[in-house]
Amino acid sequence: MKTRHMVWMGALLLLVSGCEQRNDADSGYAQWTQEVPGVWKSRVGVPDKVTLTSELTFTPKLDAIGEMGEADFPIEQTEIRFEQTDGKTYLRFPLDEGEQIYGLGLNFKTVEQRKRIMRLHVDHYGGKDDGRTHAPVPFFVSSKGYGVLLNVARYVDVYCGTGVRKDSKHPPVVRDRTTDPKWSAQPYSDNLEFLIPADGVEMVLFAGKTMLDVVRRFNLYHGGGVLPPKWGLGFWHRVPTRYTDQQVKEEVQEFKEHRFPLSVVGLEPGWQSRAYPCTYEWDNTRFPQPQQLIDTLAAQHIRVNLWMNPGISPESSVYPDIEPFTASHTEWCGAIPDYTIREAQDIMCRHWTKHQLDLGVSGYKMDENDGNDSWIFPDVATFPSGTSAEQMRQIYGSLMQHMLTNLYRQRNQRTYGLVRAGNAGTVSYPFVIYNDYYNHRDFITALINSSYIGVLWTPEVRSSATAEEWLRRMQTVCFAPIAMLNAWSDGTKPWSFPEVERQVNDAAMLRMQLIPYLYSTYADYCFRGIPPTRAMNLEEGYATNSVEEAGVLDTTKNPYALAVKRESKDQFMVGENLLVAPLFAGETERKVVLPQGRWYDFYTGELVGEGEIITVAPGLDKIPVFVKDGGIIPMFAPATTIDDTKRALVVRHYGTKASTYRLYDDDGETYNYEQGEYAYVTFKVEVDADGTRHGSAEQTTGTRLWSYNGAYDFQFMTK
Amino acid sequence: MKTRHMVWMGALLLLVSGCEQRNDADSGYAQWTQEVPGVWKSRVGVPDKVTLTSELTFTPKLDAIGEMGEADFPIEQTEIRFEQTDGKTYLRFPLDEGEQIYGLGLNFKTVEQRKRIMRLHVDHYGGKDDGRTHAPVPFFVSSKGYGVLLNVARYVDVYCGTGVRKDSKHPPVVRDRTTDPKWSAQPYSDNLEFLIPADGVEMVLFAGKTMLDVVRRFNLYHGGGVLPPKWGLGFWHRVPTRYTDQQVKEEVQEFKEHRFPLSVVGLEPGWQSRAYPCTYEWDNTRFPQPQQLIDTLAAQHIRVNLWMNPGISPESSVYPDIEPFTASHTEWCGAIPDYTIREAQDIMCRHWTKHQLDLGVSGYKMDENDGNDSWIFPDVATFPSGTSAEQMRQIYGSLMQHMLTNLYRQRNQRTYGLVRAGNAGTVSYPFVIYNDYYNHRDFITALINSSYIGVLWTPEVRSSATAEEWLRRMQTVCFAPIAMLNAWSDGTKPWSFPEVERQVNDAAMLRMQLIPYLYSTYADYCFRGIPPTRAMNLEEGYATNSVEEAGVLDTTKNPYALAVKRESKDQFMVGENLLVAPLFAGETERKVVLPQGRWYDFYTGELVGEGEIITVAPGLDKIPVFVKDGGIIPMFAPATTIDDTKRALVVRHYGTKASTYRLYDDDGETYNYEQGEYAYVTFKVEVDADGTRHGSAEQTTGTRLWSYNGAYDFQFMTK
Repeated sequence: MKTRHMVWMGALLLLVSGCEQRNDADSGYAQWTQEVPGVWKSRVGVPDKVTLTSELTFTPKLDAIGEMGEADFPIEQTEIRFEQTDGKTYLRFPLDEGEQIYGLGLNFKTVEQRKRIMRLHVDHYGGKDDGRTHAPVPFFVSSKGYGVLLNVARYVDVYCGTGVRKDSKHPPVVRDRTTDPKWSAQPYSDNLEFLIPADGVEMVLFAGKTMLDVVRRFNLYHGGGVLPPKWGLGFWHRVPTRYTDQQVKEEVQEFKEHRFPLSVVGLEPGWQSRAYPCTYEWDNTRFPQPQQLIDTLAAQHIRVNLWMNPGISPESSVYPDIEPFTASHTEWCGAIPDYTIREAQDIMCRHWTKHQLDLGVSGYKMDENDGNDSWIFPDVATFPSGTSAEQMRQIYGSLMQHMLTNLYRQRNQRTYGLVRAGNAGTVSYPFVIYNDYYNHRDFITALINSSYIGVLWTPEVRSSATAEEWLRRMQTVCFAPIAMLNAWSDGTKPWSFPEVERQVNDAAMLRMQLIPYLYSTYADYCFRGIPPTRAMNLEEGYATNSVEEAGVLDTTKNPYALAVKRESKDQFMVGENLLVAPLFAGETERKVVLPQGRWYDFYTGELVGEGEIITVAPGLDKIPVFVKDGGIIPMFAPATTIDDTKRALVVRHYGTKASTYRLYDDDGETYNYEQGEYAYVTFKVEVDADGTRHGSAEQTTGTRLWSYNGAYDFQFMTK
Repeated sequence: MKTRHMVWMGALLLLVSGCEQRNDADSGYAQWTQEVPGVWKSRVGVPDKVTLTSELTFTPKLDAIGEMGEADFPIEQTEIRFEQTDGKTYLRFPLDEGEQIYGLGLNFKTVEQRKRIMRLHVDHYGGKDDGRTHAPVPFFVSSKGYGVLLNVARYVDVYCGTGVRKDSKHPPVVRDRTTDPKWSAQPYSDNLEFLIPADGVEMVLFAGKTMLDVVRRFNLYHGGGVLPPKWGLGFWHRVPTRYTDQQVKEEVQEFKEHRFPLSVVGLEPGWQSRAYPCTYEWDNTRFPQPQQLIDTLAAQHIRVNLWMNPGISPESSVYPDIEPFTASHTEWCGAIPDYTIREAQDIMCRHWTKHQLDLGVSGYKMDENDGNDSWIFPDVATFPSGTSAEQMRQIYGSLMQHMLTNLYRQRNQRTYGLVRAGNAGTVSYPFVIYNDYYNHRDFITALINSSYIGVLWTPEVRSSATAEEWLRRMQTVCFAPIAMLNAWSDGTKPWSFPEVERQVNDAAMLRMQLIPYLYSTYADYCFRGIPPTRAMNLEEGYATNSVEEAGVLDTTKNPYALAVKRESKDQFMVGENLLVAPLFAGETERKVVLPQGRWYDFYTGELVGEGEIITVAPGLDKIPVFVKDGGIIPMFAPATTIDDTKRALVVRHYGTKASTYRLYDDDGETYNYEQGEYAYVTFKVEVDADGTRHGSAEQTTGTRLWSYNGAYDFQFMTK
C-alpha cells in the first residue's frame, strides 16, 4: 500500500511541478550572455524548435566581428523585461525620449518606426506598413546604438512606443482633451513592446557605436552579406511569359541593335510545360531545345534566370516522389513541399539539377512564397514535419533561398536571383526581393529600409504611363542590387519610350561603368557587413530630420488631430562614396540632405554643398548623384556585356581630400574567394600643399587579378 | 531501490500521459447535442473560461424558439471536422458549390463572404473588410439553412471557401495558367475553415428552413433583440463638445422654432470635468446645474444621452476605488477597468448612478471601446483577473453594454444608447453601433450586415460637402435604429443646408410618423428575433443576384486577373412591409431589386413592379420606399415629440391583398412587458370579390393601450 501511495504521490508531485513550469505567468528581466564582442544572446521561456534561422545554413563571420572591437552592453539589463502569460511571451525594451527605432521589416511608407504598431507577418505588401510584408524581420535598430533580433518564426506584434504602462517611470502628463491644446492622442510611451505567440523566444542583441555598426554585427553574425557573381550586376531583362525560344533570341538581338546592356535574360512562367501549378520542366513547344538556347545566350555572355513558384503540379514527373512530403492544402492546385524535411529538399533539388542546373541555368526568380493569404497555404494547413503553418509562412522564402543557394554552392557556383520572401538569417543568400506593387516613391523607401534588416530589394521596372516616369524608374533601378526590366506581361523593352531611349541607355551604361565600384561595395557587404544600398541614417554625419506637423481635426479623416510625420525617405547611399537622390515623375527639382562634410556632383565634380539641404534641378536626363569629399570611384569604360576580358579602369577622385579606396576582385563566379582567392588593389590619392592631387595604385592582397588589366587612369573630377 | 524506481516510473508515466493529452494533435468530427429544436451545441477541446458570452447576462427565449417548430440537423455531422495542433483549434465546415455565406462580422464593403479571408478582431473599421470591425461576430449564416456561432473571445481566422485541401472530395480542375483561359487564381474550395488560437471552442449551431429562421434562432437563443424605449425612436441630436448648458437650451429652442423633431439631446466629452481620460463627473463651468438642465429638457419630452469612453482619469473621485481593478496599460492616460471583475462593475455603476442616473440621464454613448490599436490597451496588457488582453479586446464593448443595460434594468428602466463595439451575446442590449468612418454606401452595407449578426447599426450624419449629400444621408438615418445628427465637432444642425431644410424636416417627420410601425417592428425583434432593418437575402422571394465580372489583368493592380463581384448591398427591409432603396449623392436614379410578389410605392400607393428589377428616379425630395402587397403601415400624424398622450392612427394598406398586421404597445419605458404588461391590436384588411377593401381593428392581447386612443383611420393607398 505504502509503495503504491508513494508512486502516485511522486507522480502527482512531478505532474504538478511540470504543470507549474508550463502554465504559470513567469516574469522578470532577461539574462544575457556574450557570444563575441558586441553580441549577446538571451533565452526566455522555451523557444520553438523551428525558428527563423534553425533551418538555414550560414557561417557567422565571428572574426570579422572581432575586428570591429569592443562594445558595451547598451542599456540597463533590468530594463529588458519579459512576461509569459496566456501561452505568449511579452517583451519590453525601454525607450528614451527622442530615441529612434528603425528596421522591423521591409516597410514601404515609413522609415522611423516609433509610434507604430505592426504584426510582423510574411505577405505581399498590401499598401500599409502594418507588418505584412516580404521580409518582416523582427530586428530593430535603435539610435541609442543597439539592435535586437527576436529569433522566432511567429507573427510578432510590435508596439513601438505606443503602450503606456500605469507603472511607467516616465509617465506622460495627463491632459483634458476638451480644454488643453497640448492634449495629444499619442501620449508619451517609454516602451518598445513585443507580443510573441510562443512559449519562449531566443534573442540576440547587437551593440555598436553607431547604428551602422549595429547593422554590420547583425549581418556578419548571420554570415555576412551577399557577394553576387559579377554577371549579376549587369542588366536583366525578363521577357513576356508566352515567348518562345525564337522570340527570346530575337529580343536579345534587338538589345544588340539598340546597343543596350544585357547580362541576364529572365524567362517567366511560360518556359514551363505547366505553371500555376508548376512542373519545373521545359515546355517542349515553346522551348524544344533549352540546352541550345542556354548555350547560344552563354556565347553572348548572357545568362538565363527562370521563374518558379512553390506549388508542384500533379503533372510534373517529380510529383509522385514529392507528394508524401507536401502540406494538407495546395496553392493554385499545386502541392506545397515541407522544406524543413531534408528529403523533400533533396527530391526537388535533384529535379532542378536534372532539368535546369545541368543545362547551365544560372538561377531562379522564386515567386509567391510570401502570400497572399488567398493563394498560399492557409494557417489551417498542416505539414508532414508537424511544423505549424504559421512558422512555415514566416520561413518559407528563407527555406527556398537556403535550398537554392546551397544547390549552386555544391557546384562551387554563385547564383543570383529573385525572391518574394525573406527573413532573418538570409543576408548571405544571393536573392533580391521584388513585388507587384509599383509606387515609385515607396519602392525607394523599401530600398532604404532593406539596409536595416539584412535583405536586398529591387525597384523593378515594368511599365509606365509616360516617358518621364519610365526614365525616372530606369534611373533608380540602375542603382539597385539587380537592375531589371520585368516585361512578363507588359511586353515592354528599354526603348519602349523612344523619346527617352538615349537617356535610358545612359542610365544602364552608367550601371555597367560602375560595376568595379559596385562589386567592391558588395565585397564590403560580404566581408564587413556594410549594406550596399543604405539608409542615410546609417551614414556618419547625417542628421535625421523627421518633423511632425500639427494635425488638423476632421471628424472622419483625422478625428484625433494626429500629427503628420515627415521624414527623409527618398535618398540613399550606394557604396562608400555615392549619395543618390532620385527625381520622381512630375517633379523637376527636389531637396537633397547632405551629410556633414563637402559633397560633389558626380557628373561634373563641382562642389554642391556641405552638411546642408540643397535644392537640385538636374533635368530629365540625369539622376542626382553626389560624391563625398575624397570619394574614389573606379569605373569601366561603357560596355554592354560582362565577360572574362581584363579591362582598364578610370579611377575618379572627387573633392580635395586625400583618400584611399580598396578595389576588390576575384573570379566572380565561384566560392574560391572563401579560400583566399581574391585580391585588393588599394588606390591612394595624396594632396600636395598647393592642392595638386596624385593617384597611385598597389595590389595589397592576392597575386593576380581577373577583371582588371592594371591600367588605372586617375581623373580628378574637382578643379 | 525498486520502490524509488517505481515512484519515478509512475511519475514519468503520468507526466508523459499528461503531456500527450495536452500536446498531441487531436482530430475528428464534432459531436453535437440538441439544446432545443433547431439548436445544437458542441464542444471541441478545452474552451477558454472567458468566452464571448460567459460574462454577459441574458435570458434565452427558448419558448419562442420552440414555437418556430422542428428543424433537421442541416449537414452530415462527419463533415464538420476539427483538429488541434500547435495550441490552436482548426475547424472545417463543408461548402457546396453555389452555397453562400453571410455574417462573420459587421462588414462595410461586402455582404456575401465566400472567397474571403478575415481575422475577426474588434477594432474601429479601417476601410477594408479584413475582419477588423466593431462587431466581428464569429457567426456565419449559410444559404443551406444553418448558422454556427464559435463562442470564443479570440482573434479567429476565417478562410471562407479559399483553402483547397489535397484530400478534398471535390478537387478543383488543375489548369495551366499560361495556356488555359479558364485558369482562375481562386480554384474551387469546398471548405469553410477557421483557426482559433485557443485550446478548444464551444460552438452553437442554428438550423432553419430559411436564413431568416437561422438568424431568428440565433437572436432568440441570446435573449431576443432590443425593444428600445419609445422615446429612443425619435430624433437624436448631439451638440458640439464644448457647449454649455445655456447653449444646449438655446439649441433646443432652435429645434422648436424650426419645428424639427427632437427626442434626445446628446452631450459630447465636454459635459465632463475632464475627458480623455474621463472623470464621469459634470464640468461645473459648462454644466453647473445638471439636474436643472435635465429637468428642463424632460419637461419638453427630451432626454439626455452622455458620451463616455473607457479610460478613467486620475482626477476622478472614483479613481482611488477603481484603480486596483485596472489594467497594466492606460488608454489616453486613463485607467482601464477589468470589467470581468464584479466589484469593478459595481464601483463604476455606483459612480454613474450617483452622478448621472439619479439625475435622470437616460443613457450613454460608449465611445472607443473598439480600438484602434494605438489608443486601446495593447495586447501586451495584463488585467487583474488574469483574463488575456486578447479576450478583453473581443468582449470589452459587450461588457460595457451588459453593465449599463443591467444598471438601468435594476431601476426597471429601459435605456437606449450607442456603443463602438459589440459581439455575440449582445443582441438584447439596447446599444447601437456607430463610428468615425463616413462612406455613405458602406454605411448602408453595414446596416444590411448588422442583421445577420444580432447587432444594431446607425449611419449617423455629421457633415456634408453638398446639400444633396446632406439630404440623402438624413433620409437614410431616419430609417435606422437611431436617427441621429452627431454635431460633436462640426456644429451642424438639421437645417445647416437651408436649400433642403424642408426635405430634411420631411424625412424626420416621416420617421416620427412611422414610430407605431417601427415600435411593432422592434417588438418582433424582441419576441421573435426578427431583425428590424435587414438584408434582402433574409426576405422571402428575394433572388440573390451577386454577379462576377471577368477581371482584367494589370501587372500592378490586378496581376491575377481576379474577377470582380457585384452584389446588391444598397437596399434593405425595414420591418415586415417596407423596402428602402436609398439614393446616394451624385445619382438621380437607381435600380431596385423587388422580391417576388407585387410591390407598391410608399408615397403614392402605385404598383411599381413584381419580382423584377426596376429603375426609379424619385427626385431629391424622396427616398425610394416600397411596400409589399397587402402591407399595413400604422402611422401617427406628424409630431415633433414623443410623449404620454394617446393618439389616433392612420392605418395605411397597400396593394390589393387581404392581410393582417399586429400593432404592439406597452408603456414604452419599463420592463413590465416581460411580466405580460403589453398589448397587441390586430388590424385586418379583407377584400371583397369586387376588390373593395375593408379594414378592422381588434385588441387581441392585453386590456389597455398606452400610446393609442383607439381611433384607426384606414387608408387604402392603392386605387
